[in-house]
Amino acid sequence: MKKVRFGIIGLGNQGSMYAAHLFGGGKIEHGVVTALCDINPAKIAAMKDRLKDDTIAYFENYIDMLDSGLIDAAMIEVPHYLHPGMVIDCLKRGIHVICDKPAGVYTKQVKEMNEAAKQSNAYFAMMFNQRTNCLYRKMREIIAEGGIGELQRVTWIITDWYRTQKYYDSGSWRATWEGEGGGVLINQCPHQLDLVQWVVGKLPSSVRGFCEYGKWHDIEVEDEVTAYFRYDNGATGVFITTTGETPGTNRFEVSGTCGKLVCENGELKWYKNKSDSQVFSKSSEAGFSTPGTELINVETDGQNRQHEGIINNFANAVLGLEPLFIDGKDGIRGVELMNAIELSGWKNGEEVSLPVNEEEYLSYLNEHRKTSRFKAVSDDTVADTTGTFESKKI
Amino acid sequence: MKKVRFGIIGLGNQGSMYAAHLFGGGKIEHGVVTALCDINPAKIAAMKDRLKDDTIAYFENYIDMLDSGLIDAAMIEVPHYLHPGMVIDCLKRGIHVICDKPAGVYTKQVKEMNEAAKQSNAYFAMMFNQRTNCLYRKMREIIAEGGIGELQRVTWIITDWYRTQKYYDSGSWRATWEGEGGGVLINQCPHQLDLVQWVVGKLPSSVRGFCEYGKWHDIEVEDEVTAYFRYDNGATGVFITTTGETPGTNRFEVSGTCGKLVCENGELKWYKNKSDSQVFSKSSEAGFSTPGTELINVETDGQNRQHEGIINNFANAVLGLEPLFIDGKDGIRGVELMNAIELSGWKNGEEVSLPVNEEEYLSYLNEHRKTSRFKAVSDDTVADTTGTFESKKI
Repeated sequence: MKKVRFGIIGLGNQGSMYAAHLFGGGKIEHGVVTALCDINPAKIAAMKDRLKDDTIAYFENYIDMLDSGLIDAAMIEVPHYLHPGMVIDCLKRGIHVICDKPAGVYTKQVKEMNEAAKQSNAYFAMMFNQRTNCLYRKMREIIAEGGIGELQRVTWIITDWYRTQKYYDSGSWRATWEGEGGGVLINQCPHQLDLVQWVVGKLPSSVRGFCEYGKWHDIEVEDEVTAYFRYDNGATGVFITTTGETPGTNRFEVSGTCGKLVCENGELKWYKNKSDSQVFSKSSEAGFSTPGTELINVETDGQNRQHEGIINNFANAVLGLEPLFIDGKDGIRGVELMNAIELSGWKNGEEVSLPVNEEEYLSYLNEHRKTSRFKAVSDDTVADTTGTFESKKI
Repeated sequence: MKKVRFGIIGLGNQGSMYAAHLFGGGKIEHGVVTALCDINPAKIAAMKDRLKDDTIAYFENYIDMLDSGLIDAAMIEVPHYLHPGMVIDCLKRGIHVICDKPAGVYTKQVKEMNEAAKQSNAYFAMMFNQRTNCLYRKMREIIAEGGIGELQRVTWIITDWYRTQKYYDSGSWRATWEGEGGGVLINQCPHQLDLVQWVVGKLPSSVRGFCEYGKWHDIEVEDEVTAYFRYDNGATGVFITTTGETPGTNRFEVSGTCGKLVCENGELKWYKNKSDSQVFSKSSEAGFSTPGTELINVETDGQNRQHEGIINNFANAVLGLEPLFIDGKDGIRGVELMNAIELSGWKNGEEVSLPVNEEEYLSYLNEHRKTSRFKAVSDDTVADTTGTFESKKI
């Protein structure tokens, strides 16, 4: 059968892994790498040496690669600010594209990308590899089927992102407003900010973000966040994250009128009520009674194919073999949530409604970029301001 | 050996349990009930019938009991607003006293009580029976000994307080500003609001409270709260509680630079770091490295004597046999925290510093009492405004 021909833009940690381990390791059944691109000749040379595959063409300019006729699909593995522009460049040319997370730094930029996606017949996916995790898929399924009833509370403690100062010192763009556009929210948490809305089935209607900037590290962006969510049905939630604690916790709890789900330590527990607790409350003749609960240790399909699963699905979708698992346009939802938390943090915890005021967000972001430690050699476009990023060597 | 002679004020659920089960059951080694008091003759009659003990004197007026010469110590088992006044009446007379939680409704009132305690030679304890729980004692001990290093985060999800509407309908004073002075914070959570500061060793320096009033029940006070804490050393915390969910969660997590403690499902886990994570962060040459953690399933002394333990200790302290476990003056700390959260809730989540502005708090409280559903037959003193409380029949 025909294989989808892939080109990878950006040969940093992530791009190299895809090329060498997933494609090079024969893990993508209906996909093959035909081209690789990085602006850094040294990275190209290293990759050539590593892959020793003469069938792969190398490019220093990604536009040349897109226009080469050698690829059907591209993967975007470059700094956050560059994601939307490159995705648009692909889609305009009818080249299918998988973009790594996050979809972008701010919603205004991501909306332009999504607009291009609507105009294009090409496939567009986001690398939300955590959505392939059987635990999260099962949680989503149970919630969607009404297994916990009406949503009451979402609590995600995701504090196991410990990083040393050395990590932050390893790239001058790291943890800067100009280089990354944020801290733990945009670098470590895009998966959880996507999952928290994907699993639950909706975004909060408003958030408050209590962000601590450079609390545990010598950095200018946030390395600790506590966010408070409110949903349109009155449910509330808390999202806690930091790179300053170890061993940290990863506990995702969602409760509703018919029970709760707790995902922690690789296990999913479902506390399933015998009846709806709100209905019970209104009809019970006893003050201290409860509807009763059954604890189910949920069995899943055990599948957790991560990046490999996403790329295989994408290639199969392009070939018409199966539906696309992740619509790239969904990426805006996590960015929306992230922007709202960050904006609230800048406004000292003020309540911020979703969808976020994109102009206001961008205005605050640009203020922070002006005083950012990281000074890009740049012209006045967003993409180009990131010209000296270590991993922007495209 | 001599026994301390106790009088119990208030023969509701709690007072009856002490009289019949603990004292009546011979569980208080150095204490004996010699007098009981309730303003409701029917409750006195029921108690006489239940105890069938002619050595016990009964009173309808607690002052008469205090002045009878029949008791050395009193226990206060009446509505919250009445606690401080009655404690003061005891202490002024040199009568030792155990007050049930909370210490009071607002700090101004509790301060007057504590002032009286300082002036008195009598013993004064609070019924913080949860402090006898081996798990919480052990957590406190580990933290005090530096077992988790410098405090970073406190997270208590205590959402297993489910109550039906019937519970709230069972007393017209229940869940009203005038009758109780609050909802889940003052009725269900006084123990946790005490423990959260006792275990950690300090109160937050400021809080934000997101309180939902009558969200899950037809009541005027809060039945759901999410609070965000900040501590003087920069640590943060979250406290989540509600009476609207079931089965709910009770998970208390405290993390610091040298590890974390997690107390859930009757178990205490200590994740003990091999070195301080902040020191490690600054010295490590690797970005993704951690100091390493050892998991200890903490063994405790297994003791959890609850009310029985508190009363026995109190009687023993009065007799000079052992030190008093709980200084009643400590009760103000939980009230301080409760008031701060409630005040922030009234001010739409605004940050409130501790110690709370007691006049401001009282002014907000009194505003809410004015429009309270529960209208006490009252004169203009705080204590008397609660004159028709079901359990104020003293």
